[in-house]
Amino acid sequence: MNGKIKTAVIGASGYTGIELIKILDDHEKAEIKYITSRTYSGKKAKEVFPMTLSLKNNSEITFIDEVKKKDINGIDVVFLCLPPGKSMKYVSEIIDNFKGKIIDLGADFRIKNEKEYEKWYGNIHVLKELLPMFTYGLCEIKRDEIKKADYVANPGCYPTSVLLALAPVLKSRNFKIDSINIDSKSGVSGAGKKLMEDYLFLNMSDNFYAYSATKHRHIPEMEQEISEMSGRQINVCFTPHLLPVNRGIFSTIYLNLNKDSDFNNLENNLYEYYENFYNAEIFVKFLGEKIPKLKDVVGTNTIQIGFLFDKRTCTLKIFSALDNILKGASGQAVQNMNIMFGFKEDEGLRLNSIYN
Amino acid sequence: MNGKIKTAVIGASGYTGIELIKILDDHEKAEIKYITSRTYSGKKAKEVFPMTLSLKNNSEITFIDEVKKKDINGIDVVFLCLPPGKSMKYVSEIIDNFKGKIIDLGADFRIKNEKEYEKWYGNIHVLKELLPMFTYGLCEIKRDEIKKADYVANPGCYPTSVLLALAPVLKSRNFKIDSINIDSKSGVSGAGKKLMEDYLFLNMSDNFYAYSATKHRHIPEMEQEISEMSGRQINVCFTPHLLPVNRGIFSTIYLNLNKDSDFNNLENNLYEYYENFYNAEIFVKFLGEKIPKLKDVVGTNTIQIGFLFDKRTCTLKIFSALDNILKGASGQAVQNMNIMFGFKEDEGLRLNSIYN
Amino acid sequence: MNGKIKTAVIGASGYTGIELIKILDDHEKAEIKYITSRTYSGKKAKEVFPMTLSLKNNSEITFIDEVKKKDINGIDVVFLCLPPGKSMKYVSEIIDNFKGKIIDLGADFRIKNEKEYEKWYGNIHVLKELLPMFTYGLCEIKRDEIKKADYVANPGCYPTSVLLALAPVLKSRNFKIDSINIDSKSGVSGAGKKLMEDYLFLNMSDNFYAYSATKHRHIPEMEQEISEMSGRQINVCFTPHLLPVNRGIFSTIYLNLNKDSDFNNLENNLYEYYENFYNAEIFVKFLGEKIPKLKDVVGTNTIQIGFLFDKRTCTLKIFSALDNILKGASGQAVQNMNIMFGFKEDEGLRLNSIYN
Amino acid sequence: MNGKIKTAVIGASGYTGIELIKILDDHEKAEIKYITSRTYSGKKAKEVFPMTLSLKNNSEITFIDEVKKKDINGIDVVFLCLPPGKSMKYVSEIIDNFKGKIIDLGADFRIKNEKEYEKWYGNIHVLKELLPMFTYGLCEIKRDEIKKADYVANPGCYPTSVLLALAPVLKSRNFKIDSINIDSKSGVSGAGKKLMEDYLFLNMSDNFYAYSATKHRHIPEMEQEISEMSGRQINVCFTPHLLPVNRGIFSTIYLNLNKDSDFNNLENNLYEYYENFYNAEIFVKFLGEKIPKLKDVVGTNTIQIGFLFDKRTCTLKIFSALDNILKGASGQAVQNMNIMFGFKEDEGLRLNSIYN
Repeated sequence: MNGKIKTAVIGASGYTGIELIKILDDHEKAEIKYITSRTYSGKKAKEVFPMTLSLKNNSEITFIDEVKKKDINGIDVVFLCLPPGKSMKYVSEIIDNFKGKIIDLGADFRIKNEKEYEKWYGNIHVLKELLPMFTYGLCEIKRDEIKKADYVANPGCYPTSVLLALAPVLKSRNFKIDSINIDSKSGVSGAGKKLMEDYLFLNMSDNFYAYSATKHRHIPEMEQEISEMSGRQINVCFTPHLLPVNRGIFSTIYLNLNKDSDFNNLENNLYEYYENFYNAEIFVKFLGEKIPKLKDVVGTNTIQIGFLFDKRTCTLKIFSALDNILKGASGQAVQNMNIMFGFKEDEGLRLNSIYN
Repeated sequence: MNGKIKTAVIGASGYTGIELIKILDDHEKAEIKYITSRTYSGKKAKEVFPMTLSLKNNSEITFIDEVKKKDINGIDVVFLCLPPGKSMKYVSEIIDNFKGKIIDLGADFRIKNEKEYEKWYGNIHVLKELLPMFTYGLCEIKRDEIKKADYVANPGCYPTSVLLALAPVLKSRNFKIDSINIDSKSGVSGAGKKLMEDYLFLNMSDNFYAYSATKHRHIPEMEQEISEMSGRQINVCFTPHLLPVNRGIFSTIYLNLNKDSDFNNLENNLYEYYENFYNAEIFVKFLGEKIPKLKDVVGTNTIQIGFLFDKRTCTLKIFSALDNILKGASGQAVQNMNIMFGFKEDEGLRLNSIYN
Repeated sequence: MNGKIKTAVIGASGYTGIELIKILDDHEKAEIKYITSRTYSGKKAKEVFPMTLSLKNNSEITFIDEVKKKDINGIDVVFLCLPPGKSMKYVSEIIDNFKGKIIDLGADFRIKNEKEYEKWYGNIHVLKELLPMFTYGLCEIKRDEIKKADYVANPGCYPTSVLLALAPVLKSRNFKIDSINIDSKSGVSGAGKKLMEDYLFLNMSDNFYAYSATKHRHIPEMEQEISEMSGRQINVCFTPHLLPVNRGIFSTIYLNLNKDSDFNNLENNLYEYYENFYNAEIFVKFLGEKIPKLKDVVGTNTIQIGFLFDKRTCTLKIFSALDNILKGASGQAVQNMNIMFGFKEDEGLRLNSIYN
Repeated sequence: MNGKIKTAVIGASGYTGIELIKILDDHEKAEIKYITSRTYSGKKAKEVFPMTLSLKNNSEITFIDEVKKKDINGIDVVFLCLPPGKSMKYVSEIIDNFKGKIIDLGADFRIKNEKEYEKWYGNIHVLKELLPMFTYGLCEIKRDEIKKADYVANPGCYPTSVLLALAPVLKSRNFKIDSINIDSKSGVSGAGKKLMEDYLFLNMSDNFYAYSATKHRHIPEMEQEISEMSGRQINVCFTPHLLPVNRGIFSTIYLNLNKDSDFNNLENNLYEYYENFYNAEIFVKFLGEKIPKLKDVVGTNTIQIGFLFDKRTCTLKIFSALDNILKGASGQAVQNMNIMFGFKEDEGLRLNSIYN
């Protein structure tokens, strides 16, 4: 026995699953026991996914159809990479005898109010009783709860890019915010591996547009957390766009500040709030009054945040950039695991961007 | 004599100049007499710019250093493609004896209030007395004035993408607008041909970021026209971003509507306003509650506009897409010429996008 | 009656069909009567293909399922944009009473030896008796035959890029060629509009690879014409690659010259051959000892050709670049039409590249 | 003392230097003592290069102008990332008292014949007496020599992609090769960080072309090693091209086999040669009769190799793909260090590609 915890990745052949395999492979405290995939059952990861060719410790790892009941019970932490509705179904099947921890990269346990969930996702929630037991795994904000949690709902990619950018200003409660408007831009990997005409190279290259512009499912998740952080109900206006790149989310967040606010020293105060708030964080790089660039974060688990205040319109602009598959999904999931098990928080996650 | 008007392009070796040459080359009512460039004086256009290799009527056209005083006086319309400060200098040199028309693609004559101009551009305005004689050449909005104008200030690329998208709703004056927030994304040709590290392929490919986020020079131009259209002073919050594509601007415009507004039938009313407003326009394609795509407009003189109303936050989202060098610059300049001279408005401008 | 010839495009919703519509729309001597598409029957072109939004003369043109027998007989020239096997089937159906001309953009009538055709394409040829009546429409090489032809087999995209590059040196017959090796690189539009995983943005962006590396169907076509031009049977080694761009083919062609050749003055002789050969051609730009760039030809009907002689290995390198959908397909098809009907050869085809 | 060897990177602010810093940072047996840069002297790496923001052990590492004489003598291995001419100059300055090992990523010590060097590089060689002491560091081929070497000349990026692809067939000496023709395609990072118009996003995106088509400096290096492996003098025809991507080299290598060869079983024999040859290699993935893809190797230290035999023309086509900055430069340099010091050969180098 090597003293490593045992992990399983359920639904491991999508983007987030593959990235989890890559991260866990090089993790000093965790080992991968099972990876499941209906489509690739029986195939080695390296046969179907070239990006797993250089796995250090799992070079022969093979997809299985599913983990047997008795086997899952020997697992310390299970990662769920399943579409909406499938996560709760899976949890309902294993939960009775399962003693391990669960990190759900899907959406089923993020929204505390099952009515909201059902409204936005169109699924009946079959495990409401478990909702209170899931901690929303926004690592830098909920670290203390995550430490004690058995079950974590890993945040969505857009919400991560937005909530970490907003947290210092919302939690300070010293800013009178009239409204929040979020204009996000994501690489196409955010849409998953769908074989659709829109995602063909010919249609996506040199292109750009907005989508789901009033009804994206990440809205209730953002509002839930924003309201909690700010201590009052706030609705957000959210508009996602598709960038002709593979990876990364850049969010431009507009806070309309009440015109009666005291704007003296606003920039300095803000700078101080953010500095203090994120000073000790490994995976948040606060740039002050500078604007982050998408390319600087792709391939890393880091979110970069900057701000500018537009005096003329009393608008505070906050900018954030992250890798949607890493900090926005699988990287944050492993960060959650590290917190839950008391490992070094950056174990397996000190990833540098590839670009030069 | 072929009955064509005589044109000159001053500063013809930048993006807008080259595009003007390409359009005017195939124009049935205009011919190119002179193209000037300090850098390429004495060289044929086709020697230095491959995209002019297939000119129909100007295959041998050659850059000259400058047009002589006596020669400029034989010109019917001069297009100025010069940086801020240079346009007014050039105009001041020729204006005394010049009987032709002027279309300035630069910024010097767009802003009526010379104090505003001086504040944002940092240049002293040397020709304020001429400012009232320049018509702001936003074709679909100012057509009647342009018809009578001798001098036209061709709008900036961002303002064109924003003002045409906003015009119907602003001019209707039936919407109580609390604030306007504009999030624009532009291809790198918008930055001109600068040899800077930021614009290297290695730095720009797969990248995305905001820039000039509180102080872009197109702001006063937008505010001037928005205030005129809406009948009251409105400040806009404007944030431009750089897309990893060559061409095109996509603007996402947020109108915060007053919560006391009557939202019954809002979408239907809006649809009708836009339909009526742009119904007869050749170069505006109104998509209703659909979102335009950048790729559909690149290479054309068309702006596409769509909208969505976000009831939850009382935010009206208007989307527009255009080609920054065509409808956002040289295409619109020729459209202005066509209006000024009474030609068919789409003469030379029925351009189809290249993509399939 | 406007004196224009009547055209029909059969299979008009693929890349080559759409491009034909765009070119013919602006052609002074031709009009479009019918465009057919099984998929889009009943729909206006502009509804499904944004790049046809600015058609000048055919803004309302609508796809039909098929052209009726009696209607096709009123057509002056029919363009076939059909997959292998479908062209000959279509021709066999209309040929009996059809008095017009045929330009087939497909492969069925390019290869004179039906055995070769059947070997490479895996189809039985059902119209062998018609094969001798089809002229191989490589405009610059077969102009005299094309003038007299009723039926033209429009060359493939790769063969066009290769044969025009090789023609002067092959036809001179003054070079002792041991072997010909062709390394071609094509944009993804060459693969047509297939919804395959390989062509997703995520898989194609930042990627590059060879395909069909020993058995591409354009090989027999190239060998047939190379052998004809050189007066002896030559087999070519051909390797196509996929570039992460939409449009364009760049071919690097290696001629191993016999080591006993006289290499004195080789460059000068070559320069002269090419100069004389292509001097008067509108759509061939010979660059001498310079290398063409893909971007300079995309969006145009021009092929650019350059060469370099590698003395150390007795290898003559010839480089060519063209737009695979224009000079490599629809542009050349219209050029063929212009030649067949005695129009100006560049009518409708003076297209400039979009880039700056 | 942590038992790690001490390294220095001279000229550390180019692509290869930065990549070395990233790899060495995570190396269990090596530590970075010095990184030099004239341009960035005094600046922390993370201030100027975002891709070093997540360094694990060197988060505060700072560029210095140069390493002092006495300091360099405490170094176990020095990596030189210097332009031609500068490497030998630097070596000549330190060599007298330096007891450590040298890995030169530049070109000065690759070519054994100083006359050849001077001819292709245009520099007088000032250290010819040292040339025999430098081992050509093509790891998989020269491992035994590298183990004993103090000085290693790290191969060029193109030669690595070509020589590893050719080695099994050349060393077998069972194939009668008439000529070798190499058509390589490289991402723009191969050109280094030059601020030139050609490398602007606007000029490089959607573009493709050949360059240095008869005189690339990697030719003599390839010929030297090919001749050694095959036991006879062979000249190669080499043509590099520029791809619109940042990273990676794809080489298509054509071996014209003598027509009198025995082609029975050629594919099987080849398959066996390669399998045996590379079977035990960690960083070579032999694909058999499949074609590698650029995207599968970018971000890794792996070269992928496949082949196809074109019977019709007696041409053996060998395809290889690698990351030009990793296996083609800094990755191979660290692999050389690992071999020289007896570390695990993949220490620090089990890198997975980022793509999904």
